[in-house]
Amino acid sequence: MVIEDKLQELKEQINKIVPSGITISDVEFEGPELVIYTDDPKQFADQADLIKVLARDLRKRIVVRPNILEDPERAAQEIRTVVPENAGISDLFFDPETGEVLIEAEKPGVVIGKNGVTLREITKQIGWTPKVVRTPPIESSTVKQIRTFLRSVKDERKAFLRKIGHRIHRETTSKDQWLRVTTLGCCREVGRAAFLISTPESKVLVDCGEKPGNTANGTPYIYVPEIYPLDSLDAVVLTHAHLDHCALVPLLFKYGYEGPVYSTPPTRDLSAMLQLDYLDVVRKETDKIPYTSNEVKTYIKHSITLNYGSVTDIAPDIKLTFHNAGHILGSAIAHFHIGEGLYNIAFTGDFNYQKTRLFSPAVSSFPRLEALFMESTYGGSNDIQPQRRDAEERLYEAVSTTLKRGGKVIIPAFAVGRSQEVMLALEEGIRKKKIPPVKIYLDGMIREATAIHTTYPEYLNNDLRNQIFREGLNPFLADAFVQVDSPDLREQVISGEPCVIITTSGMLSGGPVMEYLKALGPDERNMLIFVGYQADGTLGRRIQKGWREIPLGWRETIVINLEIATTDGFSGHSDRKQLMNYVAHLQPRPEKIFTIHGDENKTIDLASSIYKRYRIETHSPMNLETYRMI
Amino acid sequence: MVIEDKLQELKEQINKIVPSGITISDVEFEGPELVIYTDDPKQFADQADLIKVLARDLRKRIVVRPNILEDPERAAQEIRTVVPENAGISDLFFDPETGEVLIEAEKPGVVIGKNGVTLREITKQIGWTPKVVRTPPIESSTVKQIRTFLRSVKDERKAFLRKIGHRIHRETTSKDQWLRVTTLGCCREVGRAAFLISTPESKVLVDCGEKPGNTANGTPYIYVPEIYPLDSLDAVVLTHAHLDHCALVPLLFKYGYEGPVYSTPPTRDLSAMLQLDYLDVVRKETDKIPYTSNEVKTYIKHSITLNYGSVTDIAPDIKLTFHNAGHILGSAIAHFHIGEGLYNIAFTGDFNYQKTRLFSPAVSSFPRLEALFMESTYGGSNDIQPQRRDAEERLYEAVSTTLKRGGKVIIPAFAVGRSQEVMLALEEGIRKKKIPPVKIYLDGMIREATAIHTTYPEYLNNDLRNQIFREGLNPFLADAFVQVDSPDLREQVISGEPCVIITTSGMLSGGPVMEYLKALGPDERNMLIFVGYQADGTLGRRIQKGWREIPLGWRETIVINLEIATTDGFSGHSDRKQLMNYVAHLQPRPEKIFTIHGDENKTIDLASSIYKRYRIETHSPMNLETYRMI
Repeated sequence: MVIEDKLQELKEQINKIVPSGITISDVEFEGPELVIYTDDPKQFADQADLIKVLARDLRKRIVVRPNILEDPERAAQEIRTVVPENAGISDLFFDPETGEVLIEAEKPGVVIGKNGVTLREITKQIGWTPKVVRTPPIESSTVKQIRTFLRSVKDERKAFLRKIGHRIHRETTSKDQWLRVTTLGCCREVGRAAFLISTPESKVLVDCGEKPGNTANGTPYIYVPEIYPLDSLDAVVLTHAHLDHCALVPLLFKYGYEGPVYSTPPTRDLSAMLQLDYLDVVRKETDKIPYTSNEVKTYIKHSITLNYGSVTDIAPDIKLTFHNAGHILGSAIAHFHIGEGLYNIAFTGDFNYQKTRLFSPAVSSFPRLEALFMESTYGGSNDIQPQRRDAEERLYEAVSTTLKRGGKVIIPAFAVGRSQEVMLALEEGIRKKKIPPVKIYLDGMIREATAIHTTYPEYLNNDLRNQIFREGLNPFLADAFVQVDSPDLREQVISGEPCVIITTSGMLSGGPVMEYLKALGPDERNMLIFVGYQADGTLGRRIQKGWREIPLGWRETIVINLEIATTDGFSGHSDRKQLMNYVAHLQPRPEKIFTIHGDENKTIDLASSIYKRYRIETHSPMNLETYRMI
Repeated sequence: MVIEDKLQELKEQINKIVPSGITISDVEFEGPELVIYTDDPKQFADQADLIKVLARDLRKRIVVRPNILEDPERAAQEIRTVVPENAGISDLFFDPETGEVLIEAEKPGVVIGKNGVTLREITKQIGWTPKVVRTPPIESSTVKQIRTFLRSVKDERKAFLRKIGHRIHRETTSKDQWLRVTTLGCCREVGRAAFLISTPESKVLVDCGEKPGNTANGTPYIYVPEIYPLDSLDAVVLTHAHLDHCALVPLLFKYGYEGPVYSTPPTRDLSAMLQLDYLDVVRKETDKIPYTSNEVKTYIKHSITLNYGSVTDIAPDIKLTFHNAGHILGSAIAHFHIGEGLYNIAFTGDFNYQKTRLFSPAVSSFPRLEALFMESTYGGSNDIQPQRRDAEERLYEAVSTTLKRGGKVIIPAFAVGRSQEVMLALEEGIRKKKIPPVKIYLDGMIREATAIHTTYPEYLNNDLRNQIFREGLNPFLADAFVQVDSPDLREQVISGEPCVIITTSGMLSGGPVMEYLKALGPDERNMLIFVGYQADGTLGRRIQKGWREIPLGWRETIVINLEIATTDGFSGHSDRKQLMNYVAHLQPRPEKIFTIHGDENKTIDLASSIYKRYRIETHSPMNLETYRMI
């Protein structure tokens, strides 16, 4: 059936379901959603369950939009009239592209009202579809820029979403039935994640990362014919925002991709932030950058965000659902349902099966699951990490010792994930008096990354959310934290009182941490605490190994007299024990497990251990292989 | 280096090697050969070892051609003057495309002369390069047509060979090193053989067959992106001429392929013959034929033939060598040497490790071998075939019994391979008086296939060649054999004396065998002897199962009263024991063996048995998978 006939048929079905008196003027696919245009948004809003009924009967994600939108200024007035003042509305964004108004409020619950009554009232009054978000306690410039940019390209984006909508719902013709996965990177290695899922109808790329510190083989094999031409891809799906999973997504657009990139909302924002930073870093090292900020914008223009648990058509025969992976903000296990019950395959991305201060453990239960591609960073039989509690105790001890002797603590950390974990641990340490009250300076992208965390409280775990909303104690807003936002302040920190400095980069491969090391390195009262893995070839690893004089440019040298400590246990990855545990708890038990994203010996060790213990067929693929699933 | 520079460099090297007095006017790649054009073909011919020296030093296949060719009529006269009359020259073909003259003679040795002295004399006198072949004792219209056709398209073909020559020797740029094999058919099934070898530089397709009796899934997966666009293929390589390996090669040209198809000379001729017959058969069953005879011509125009043992560049980083596979005339194991000593991989095609009346056992020794793709038709642990000698005894007995009671014997057989084996067995049976002297009628394509066999005696085994040439006893020319070439004669055979009829098709799915069955089926004195495998769903299988009345169209019925016998042991495939034996004798021992071309349980059984007995890594791939070799 051609798409126009399909839409006509859907319109007829909808007309049969909606009560008379509601006029459906148009029905259109936009991205993965089915949009119903109506002249009677008020009557629609009156029928509390109508959209749910439509979604269930049509098996589509339904959005209702009025044909004519009220003037934003007048609409804003009406919203403020309807919503009680104690909701604390801080901002309103009207988006004519989607007919939505984003209502930012201190208390979103008050805007929504009991059972959504206030929200429906708003819809009735103004036509615009209200979306309510909590006013972020720290404003993120990334989020703001992305929202502003998306509004500025609304016409293009509308056309794009319609094109994608039609493509997803296109007619299929193939008589064949098969499912293949081609490994384009990240096999028997860490980095350059890229996996191609293909069926006779569709092609989907999962992740497209770079390999850190490896410029020669830093790119996944995206030149092989399986993935060409790039515009034959139906979708790119991102598991999370770390650069080894997302850095080269903008490159796909440079090479001709024009389709959607699906991710959770935090992954989109963090990715853009980290990609722009990645360009800065690469630019400093070489005069060849793989793409420019223009391609990052193109990526954002083509992004489609999905929340955890939302089952979404992304191709005629593929449904995608994201599930919490517990690794960093917005990190997801990407679950694909193929065909009408034909097969189910999931990619864990990076995941943590241990509960952390920020996140719940990774989801291990799925409606169906036949094959799992599983990360193996700590897949070796000796890769046992200390308990989080023990790691924190050791951190407290190191910090206390340093402060006591009048020294300063430098903690190099990744801006996203590790920094926030350490911040929360230190904040509690101060609150519970395990360390003295001390200023904790944040330098580099950490503040901005933290702001993005506070923009998406629904992606944090229950305890932290409760602490923030019920108890009114947002640990990220604690007085101890001070953003270093000028060279002057940095100078003051360096010459000032004993303190803790959390700063980037995490492996001492550049960034503000170098300034601190240069200034504070010679004083043996200070301490450098590594909280994350230091890769071979990085300065961090060299210092761990015992380097004590670091040449810097022509004449300068960093002298390392400060104390060096390493505190394992803050990792965002599951260790070996948790990986095995995860497999044991998988619901349902998959038929096949592929161990990826780990050094060669670790992926092989994990695969053979899983097979021996659980008798599940395992593979430890090489790059450039294709496995047939069905 | 661009190709022009490369050729210039080669020309300089050649000038250093050839004695002064010989002028090299031009040097050019044509197909896989390096052609040296000279004004002094006579002086070149005088230097007996010069071409060998050049080939060794330049590591290229060298051909020397004069710039100016003598008028064919005068050249013909001179050849007849130089060559002694007892050579028995039967024909001369002048081919201006290649500057070659094909000399067909009863005694090729006399034309060549001792150590090639006569041949060099010819070259000196006429400029044309002489190629000597034996006058085929039975003229093949296929071979004649192909030669005539190739002469008619000589200009196109010259341009084509030059294009391919340049492509083979193109500059390579990739820094990556890998080798992959993608399975496009023939895995866990018999039929539609098609395997893609790919490196960062090159792509080669091995075989492109159809799946007999299966129209729904009869085509290999040649639509997947790995192989698109088809013109990105560097080469197609054919192991042998059976339709499950070669039927869809012309389809590749219809879909845009424009490159070479490498095979042995007999495989080219038999393929063309069988493809044209295939079109006839399909046309009778359906109105959709996959291609027309035009595409068969296009295939022939793009064919490049190689003899066993000739190491040939077919891509910048791939060398191909064919080795005898013992299965049918010209059947080959295709051995690929990748890169400069990087890897070696071979595809057995169908092979027989038992010596037969026609062929030597398959080659099991290679200069190097890391991976082997191996057929598994009889790979199941119970797939033991009787010894050839026992099979023949049983055949003699069945024939004698039938003739004694005044009956006729119908032997349905494939035109290529099985028919000739049975012919030779029966001829010896008569000669050695194991069966009475009797007429053996050949109906269908068998005669033409036999003619092609006699055109290429160098592809038969030593015993048969000796029998033909030393003892002057060509069994194919025995008086017993009579070709049925008219409906009248067929009528006479049916109503005549007791006799043996060998006829197609081998599984009773059409062809003249149907006429014989209709006429001779009701008489219980007659016998139907199956000498080959009868696939599920064929009439042959049904009769084996016990069908005794066969509806034919609206009203007719074939009544089966004749005796049914099955004589196993004439197969062109290795049985289970020989397959295991072959692996044991492989030199060198490969690292990996892939079992293909067999029912699912047989490929798996063989793979696991090889692993258990020899501890070689084995895989039983599925279609549509990609394996990384290195």
